Amino acid sequence: MTALALRAGVHRDVVRRLGLGILEGTWPPGGRLPNEADLCARFQVSRTALREAVRFLAAKGLIEARPRLGMVVRARDSWNLLDPQLLAWQREWGTFDPDLVRSLLEARRVVEPAAAAMAAERATAADLARLEAALLGMVRNLPGDLDACCKADLAFHREILAASRNLVFAQLAGTIGAALEASFRISTELSRSYERTIEAHRDVLEAIRLRDRPAAEARMRALIDVAQADLEPALRELA
Amino acid sequence: MTALALRAGVHRDVVRRLGLGILEGTWPPGGRLPNEADLCARFQVSRTALREAVRFLAAKGLIEARPRLGMVVRARDSWNLLDPQLLAWQREWGTFDPDLVRSLLEARRVVEPAAAAMAAERATAADLARLEAALLGMVRNLPGDLDACCKADLAFHREILAASRNLVFAQLAGTIGAALEASFRISTELSRSYERTIEAHRDVLEAIRLRDRPAAEARMRALIDVAQADLEPALRELA
Repeated sequence: MTALALRAGVHRDVVRRLGLGILEGTWPPGGRLPNEADLCARFQVSRTALREAVRFLAAKGLIEARPRLGMVVRARDSWNLLDPQLLAWQREWGTFDPDLVRSLLEARRVVEPAAAAMAAERATAADLARLEAALLGMVRNLPGDLDACCKADLAFHREILAASRNLVFAQLAGTIGAALEASFRISTELSRSYERTIEAHRDVLEAIRLRDRPAAEARMRALIDVAQADLEPALRELA
Repeated sequence: MTALALRAGVHRDVVRRLGLGILEGTWPPGGRLPNEADLCARFQVSRTALREAVRFLAAKGLIEARPRLGMVVRARDSWNLLDPQLLAWQREWGTFDPDLVRSLLEARRVVEPAAAAMAAERATAADLARLEAALLGMVRNLPGDLDACCKADLAFHREILAASRNLVFAQLAGTIGAALEASFRISTELSRSYERTIEAHRDVLEAIRLRDRPAAEARMRALIDVAQADLEPALRELA
């Protein structure tokens, strides 16, 4: 292992332990982090490694330096909740807030139909080919390999955001992807009505291919309604 | 000055120089950064200070460690373009991409009307008071203090996103705020039709106060159309 790879491993580990402590509330918003020496001792790492982790988490909005106080955990609404990495951690660490899951679904209902409409206007032949491939990936892996099916599903939604040719929506692909993955994870225990879902995806693709903006928008909205209906029982349990 | 404040100053400076070099293309996407020793010598900083800056910019998606290559500048579409800080830097450093400005306007046209509709349903008395205060701030500072007027304008839009009670939209306040500030800056040379703008803001607030979802949505769309019309000549110049 190279020195760089070793350092990267240590960095990931310190970021994870410090980040998890904040997300889980060991160090609650508004409170101070322990001082450098204590944290170094606790994590068994060098001051440099700790400081790099601190800078990283500061960049994600979790903590900030305050004069005379040292590092302080910021209020929850200052966290970059849309950061794909932060979303992935929350999923991985089981610290997902049901409010955030609901907000993500609601936001998808606004953003994705608009992106589908833009894609109907702007998608290139290459975009259409990638959407077709994602749809085929869903069909081919059903019902045997749900995992591969979810991956293809995710790719379909990402490709539509990319095909919208709107830089903001393309950037939201990471966030919306993380939201989708969280949905998949939440709803794995449900028998997902995937047949219906695939029909809904096919309808969206057809509208985009026909350059039919209003249909693309309406069908994407219908698709998300199907997903939301699947998710509702699980969300009620979470709440 | 405390040691922490001094370190924070050095950190900001290294981040700025490294970040600017990447945004301006001194180190283009796909290329390697110079090695640590060279960068430390160039910026006259310690290895620790450099590494902290590197971690910070890695967290913003600008660079990543690659085995055997060291730090590499990531492709432009991996950058966290929606990060408010990254947007602020682009504004400050004059490296704003006209494509991004257009995308931001287009995204505002999707997100803000939806947020206004949600706010019509969910705004509390305190939200309404804050919106009223922001509107008054715009009126009071016109036409003498355009700067204060822009600040109040910004507050109005932020408050609507907050009042939507959607965590994703509330998070986008930073991004949309940065987009608005960029718009203000771009259009300062234009005689902004602020009278008309204020009328449009008042209409949105009235619809939210009356809990009229469709009106709030439609009027916010009309408001953004006014802003866009103001901006078009400047955008044409940028392109």
